[in-house]
Amino acid sequence: MSTEQDDRERQLTDRVVASFDDTPDPRLKEVMQALTRHLHAFVREVRLTESEWQRAIAFLTATGHATDDRRQEFILLSDVLGASMQTVTVNNRADADATEATVFGPFFVEGSPRIEHGGDISFGASGRPCWVEGTVTGTGGQPVAGARIEVWEADDDGFYDVQYGDDRTAARGHLFSDDDGRYRFWAIEPTPYPIPHDGPVGELLRATGRSPMRASHLHFMVEAPGWRTLVTHIFVRGDALLGSDSVFGVRDSLVKDFEPQAPGTATPDGRDLSGQAWSRVRFDIVLAPGS
Amino acid sequence: MSTEQDDRERQLTDRVVASFDDTPDPRLKEVMQALTRHLHAFVREVRLTESEWQRAIAFLTATGHATDDRRQEFILLSDVLGASMQTVTVNNRADADATEATVFGPFFVEGSPRIEHGGDISFGASGRPCWVEGTVTGTGGQPVAGARIEVWEADDDGFYDVQYGDDRTAARGHLFSDDDGRYRFWAIEPTPYPIPHDGPVGELLRATGRSPMRASHLHFMVEAPGWRTLVTHIFVRGDALLGSDSVFGVRDSLVKDFEPQAPGTATPDGRDLSGQAWSRVRFDIVLAPGS
Repeated sequence: MSTEQDDRERQLTDRVVASFDDTPDPRLKEVMQALTRHLHAFVREVRLTESEWQRAIAFLTATGHATDDRRQEFILLSDVLGASMQTVTVNNRADADATEATVFGPFFVEGSPRIEHGGDISFGASGRPCWVEGTVTGTGGQPVAGARIEVWEADDDGFYDVQYGDDRTAARGHLFSDDDGRYRFWAIEPTPYPIPHDGPVGELLRATGRSPMRASHLHFMVEAPGWRTLVTHIFVRGDALLGSDSVFGVRDSLVKDFEPQAPGTATPDGRDLSGQAWSRVRFDIVLAPGS
Repeated sequence: MSTEQDDRERQLTDRVVASFDDTPDPRLKEVMQALTRHLHAFVREVRLTESEWQRAIAFLTATGHATDDRRQEFILLSDVLGASMQTVTVNNRADADATEATVFGPFFVEGSPRIEHGGDISFGASGRPCWVEGTVTGTGGQPVAGARIEVWEADDDGFYDVQYGDDRTAARGHLFSDDDGRYRFWAIEPTPYPIPHDGPVGELLRATGRSPMRASHLHFMVEAPGWRTLVTHIFVRGDALLGSDSVFGVRDSLVKDFEPQAPGTATPDGRDLSGQAWSRVRFDIVLAPGS
């Protein structure tokens, strides 16, 4: 590249950065100036052509038009570019042995049913019964009593209750850790499912040879006063999709052994499963101190 | 930042980049991998918070919903971030004394009226008459005969014909350079106007203390076989907005002297302006060789 050309490109970036100099909010100024620098660096590095720029505009337009009250295609876009997971990572800094966070996803619902210890969050959702137990402690090892543990998951057809369009509540619930920080409940063993892929983001995945499938997971959100709220999943060891989760949510530390139990094996709480196979998993949760 | 935290963030970016490894189209792979790296670098540099991420999603959603067949809010967004102008700059490399390119803008219309040399493109648009003349040559200095010169501009109320919502055609037209590469026509002297600023992009400009105003300009597109098509404007020397054009289209080399002529001054072609003041400008166009 000629010096003249390089100068033109650099000076343009400098002019745009300077245009934000008078932004009253210093944080907005910082964010917009950084966005400008990175956006221009991208355009310059790939030598974006004018027809590629037009395709980008058309893609964003289609993404906007696919988004409505029930569907958020921009969140999907952020998810498949790993921007959601990077934001989670930046905001949940590594802290000793604190449990790692992962993406929140679009399927959490406020006001889930409360269950008792040993209760069942499935509420009729289809899937293999799964016993989930563990403890909630702080990074110092002390038990955290009374932590609110929210759990939600898809059924074995790959759908969350809210995707059915009726009023069902299923495969979600909350409970509180006991005085020793322990918890236990019945759920269903998680199975893989695709993110919605009939829109522009699905087209992008197809064009780039990527799968829309998410690795099997069970969502947790754990809140307790004085501790950093933890939003995470646990994943199923052995799931073939662990290495290709479409939203990059997998962390090695979050992959757990879901131990299969043959039909007729005694359950921890004496529940009669009428000869069904079931599984069990242990997830010990470690919270980081609140800020 | 701890080494562990830095590793987590880097490894995440690497995983997303690798997810595009099997993209069949090598150019799409290059673009998506570069986009991923720059997007993640932005999130990491500013330590984007989760509420800022949510605001970004909401902004993109609103931008999508403001976009329809008549309005392209994503192009405006690209314009005010200088991404449009950087794309133009990348695709019109500096080439000796070739005339610099600038943004195309959304107001070009195919099928403009043809005028003869000395004709008037205003077609009744309001504004001070302005005589425009010059030559079209190649970078070697040779005249380019028969170059198609498209010209379009806003009237002195700040509107292009297509913004009126009726069927008028005004302040646009085309002509061809003569055998010596010369051209000449009547237009109206350009005046400043704002880009549409009643949508999300307008909110962004207000929040960052920026003006929506564009510096006064007259659009040109010059096409001739064997030469690189030139899309550019000329600007008015002395315009107070030259340093703050909202879409960063101004280039020093494109700022021209629009020389005011007192009422009654003889016109170059003997046209009777009934005692109106008028102005004149010279714009010698230099085309780069086609690729």
